[in-house]
Amino acid sequence: MRFGVSLEKDLLSKFDQRIREKKYTNRSEALRDLIREDLVKKEWQENKEISGAITLIYDHHKRELLDRITDIQHDFQKLIISTQHIHLDHNNCLEIVAIRGKSREAQKLAETLKAIKGVKHGTLSMSSTGDHID
Amino acid sequence: MRFGVSLEKDLLSKFDQRIREKKYTNRSEALRDLIREDLVKKEWQENKEISGAITLIYDHHKRELLDRITDIQHDFQKLIISTQHIHLDHNNCLEIVAIRGKSREAQKLAETLKAIKGVKHGTLSMSSTGDHID
Amino acid sequence: MRFGVSLEKDLLSKFDQRIREKKYTNRSEALRDLIREDLVKKEWQENKEISGAITLIYDHHKRELLDRITDIQHDFQKLIISTQHIHLDHNNCLEIVAIRGKSREAQKLAETLKAIKGVKHGTLSMSSTGDHID
Amino acid sequence: MRFGVSLEKDLLSKFDQRIREKKYTNRSEALRDLIREDLVKKEWQENKEISGAITLIYDHHKRELLDRITDIQHDFQKLIISTQHIHLDHNNCLEIVAIRGKSREAQKLAETLKAIKGVKHGTLSMSSTGDHID
Repeated sequence: MRFGVSLEKDLLSKFDQRIREKKYTNRSEALRDLIREDLVKKEWQENKEISGAITLIYDHHKRELLDRITDIQHDFQKLIISTQHIHLDHNNCLEIVAIRGKSREAQKLAETLKAIKGVKHGTLSMSSTGDHID
Repeated sequence: MRFGVSLEKDLLSKFDQRIREKKYTNRSEALRDLIREDLVKKEWQENKEISGAITLIYDHHKRELLDRITDIQHDFQKLIISTQHIHLDHNNCLEIVAIRGKSREAQKLAETLKAIKGVKHGTLSMSSTGDHID
Repeated sequence: MRFGVSLEKDLLSKFDQRIREKKYTNRSEALRDLIREDLVKKEWQENKEISGAITLIYDHHKRELLDRITDIQHDFQKLIISTQHIHLDHNNCLEIVAIRGKSREAQKLAETLKAIKGVKHGTLSMSSTGDHID
Repeated sequence: MRFGVSLEKDLLSKFDQRIREKKYTNRSEALRDLIREDLVKKEWQENKEISGAITLIYDHHKRELLDRITDIQHDFQKLIISTQHIHLDHNNCLEIVAIRGKSREAQKLAETLKAIKGVKHGTLSMSSTGDHID
């Protein structure tokens, strides 16, 4: 399917610069991705089945912290597929939790983990199961 | 260390609501996290040593796609610690790439992977090595 | 529960040496592990619900290889929890497939993956779901 | 390179049956894998640079256990690439540690982890960096 798009000259030139920066080969490919981004955003807003990742940075020497993180993850066991743990240095750990389930549950888990005392930083990657974006 | 903070009444009441939503037990804990968020943002802006995760959603049946994704990851081999691959269903894959290195390299890798034809969605989690946020 | 065990002097002294080598703190702890090992072996022989890991070493430049490995993994999707992929060097990949399901299915998947032309080495770790070993 | 192999009739017929069971398409492919298996075994015996995986099953509710496992992993930080953690059920965890380094160090880490009180089962997958097996 092909269709025309009309854009202000300024907006188009800024868009073309973004395309070059982001290494797309053409405008359609770049627009396709913007549309998909927006569809994924909708999946998260409407509490749909989503997939994603939670990252955590923490110092594993803080006693109780590991037990707390693991207990919470077991409470959300259905949501969590698997967790990747990387020993960054003698103190710091990077933990990446792969998740799949309802977006609201995912956000609740991310917030609960990030609010644990001793967790230095956390992020939530909001992605999709890929089912409804082609 | 303890010090006073003065805030507009409205701003404080909105902040307190956020604290309740995000399940913090007190204001200091919540402020500590905002300050850390800001420090991590700075690490990414100043091309410091960072850690993070890239997520990708794609249909593995698209021929050439897997070879392309793997070739690129091998080109950025020093940046990549390990990749977690989850078979979401018969078609869709969730791939989570754990990274550590300079933030600019990380952004370049994320953009290169997301721009591959056939990749449906991608995210970049910007986190830290934990070294400079205590 | 405590009970006595009688062993030939020679066998006991060899066992004690093994205990020291394997860093156990006492005989009961070492015997407990031997009994568990045997229970896990039984789970695998009787096609019980097990968990484990398959490792693969391959050169990702071999065309078709990645598609083949991924296609097979999607065919065994219910068995596979998640796959960890490590870029060892510019050519070699280490892939670790976390599995859970019937032991016969697990062995079939391991054999199918190892027999793919281009896979240099493969192993199957036979472990347990932990449910029936306390 | 092609060369002839002479085998006892009985041994050949048993070998051919194994080939069918293991789904190889021809004898050369099956022999190639036996030779590689033997080369990998040698790498482990001679304390060469190897790669592999350690699996652990444990009940995360055992207090101190998580701290102990994580402390030990940080002590062997150079050997460990990344750890995959799977919440099997409310109690049991499957942990898969991806390793690369000297075989003796790998064996030491595996034994130390398996001997921790509370670890129900452990395995060590002995594989290769792929460098010296083609």
